[in-house]
Amino acid sequence: MNKPLLFNLEDHFKAPLAALDDVEMGALFQRTFPDGESYVRLDTNVAGRDVFFIGSLNQPNAKTLPLLFAAQAARAQRARSVQLVAPYLAYLRQDEAFQSGEAVTAHSFASLLSGFFDHLITLDPHLHRIGALERVYQIPTTTLHAAHPIAEWIKGNVENPLLIGPDAESEQWVRDVARRLACPFVICRKTRSGDRQVKIDLPPLPENAGLTPVLLDDIVSTGQTMIQTLKLVTQHTQTPPVCIAIHAVFSDESLLKQLGHARLLTCNTIAHHTNLIDVSSLIVTAIKSASSRWNS
Amino acid sequence: MNKPLLFNLEDHFKAPLAALDDVEMGALFQRTFPDGESYVRLDTNVAGRDVFFIGSLNQPNAKTLPLLFAAQAARAQRARSVQLVAPYLAYLRQDEAFQSGEAVTAHSFASLLSGFFDHLITLDPHLHRIGALERVYQIPTTTLHAAHPIAEWIKGNVENPLLIGPDAESEQWVRDVARRLACPFVICRKTRSGDRQVKIDLPPLPENAGLTPVLLDDIVSTGQTMIQTLKLVTQHTQTPPVCIAIHAVFSDESLLKQLGHARLLTCNTIAHHTNLIDVSSLIVTAIKSASSRWNS
Repeated sequence: MNKPLLFNLEDHFKAPLAALDDVEMGALFQRTFPDGESYVRLDTNVAGRDVFFIGSLNQPNAKTLPLLFAAQAARAQRARSVQLVAPYLAYLRQDEAFQSGEAVTAHSFASLLSGFFDHLITLDPHLHRIGALERVYQIPTTTLHAAHPIAEWIKGNVENPLLIGPDAESEQWVRDVARRLACPFVICRKTRSGDRQVKIDLPPLPENAGLTPVLLDDIVSTGQTMIQTLKLVTQHTQTPPVCIAIHAVFSDESLLKQLGHARLLTCNTIAHHTNLIDVSSLIVTAIKSASSRWNS
Repeated sequence: MNKPLLFNLEDHFKAPLAALDDVEMGALFQRTFPDGESYVRLDTNVAGRDVFFIGSLNQPNAKTLPLLFAAQAARAQRARSVQLVAPYLAYLRQDEAFQSGEAVTAHSFASLLSGFFDHLITLDPHLHRIGALERVYQIPTTTLHAAHPIAEWIKGNVENPLLIGPDAESEQWVRDVARRLACPFVICRKTRSGDRQVKIDLPPLPENAGLTPVLLDDIVSTGQTMIQTLKLVTQHTQTPPVCIAIHAVFSDESLLKQLGHARLLTCNTIAHHTNLIDVSSLIVTAIKSASSRWNS
């Protein structure tokens, strides 16, 4: 039985992936011509192999064509299966036309990927109203959750945490982590009036002077949600808060200057210097499990 | 009978398109979210209409997803046909795997577009070894040629032209324009050793002191081919040469500083300040002809 073959598009989880003894790391070469076109070459023979491509889909537009070219090359060279591991997945917000004429990009993007891959593995996708990836993807999908490594990090680093979710959508993550830690949590209410304009309403906090506020959200992009929540929280507590986001999308790095005494950390789904919570073992386990299923 | 509906992705040929009285200009709104995802909305009702999207595909990777989303939106909103007008078309170089494992991007890109559009109109595609667009596109295609407007421009602006093609591939354009002008031409030989490294061999030039050299090529990207050819030509003639390229890809604008006394002009397939040869009437005629065919 051939080992599954992994091509790493962005040096994600390089060390733990290389240490997998039942998976082979493939060599992929890519470059951009002066006119902006991509060149992609698979330097490991894929014929008859189960092939995985791993890379996050933040800032997705420029990344998508080279990814599809690589998948198509694996298919043309007779891979047995072609699978995508996207620790961060894109285009999950616009899942219907809210105004007449709108492109429903969640469906278009999912259909596009579904035409090139046999299986998708991702971690805590921002599902919004979609509910489940199966509603937009036509291929089998595996969804992983960072709740366990996040809870472990908090357990090892924060005494008496009080989890704070900035909006109703964050409740799924906050509730799960709070349950694992048996700690209290509150959920704020968010009103958004633009890409960078949000208003947060903070509910009353528990009256316990020893609690450390831990803000938790799935994505930090412009960071406005986190900064607004942080401002309100620091008015009610003397303990410097900890901010945790799963995906370091960071469309605006200036956010990092507005944190004051708060600490910000993220999971390593998107490479960033705030990556302090390691989710590689979740990803590695999912790849092993998917390859054994394909082999059975 | 409904008029065909045109969405202009890049303000191409705005004035001549708007002046078409048997075509309606549609309103398209697009923007990029802070996280790099695209939003696309068609603000003109497309139901039952023949819909054309016009935009050039230079620097293609970031442009392709929004284009596919727009096409998908038109399809979802029950356009009768969805057609692409790409005055400059991308991904025509890699039409086979020269080394084992290479992605054959010409085929992958053409298949991708063929899944979203019913018809493609383009102008002087860089066909290289492909020969005809039909070899890679699975949809009907219309290929236009800039030879007529280029010949007209030379006729009106250059006395006694001597056309010079920098390499064997340019011969198709040079020969056609020379025939229309009944003027002499020569073709150089090019050896490429890298993206920006080329060596040109110039054949003996006709012995006629009154000739003005006119370099003609389909694409100017890094400009190395044109600059090397220009250097050789200026060693053999006192008359400042004229350089003409159809597509102003211009991956390196510093080329413009190396022209010396030579003049450089391009067709307006890709917007650039060197656009002096107008091909809009060719495009506009092709759109009218395609829409009447779809309506018959």
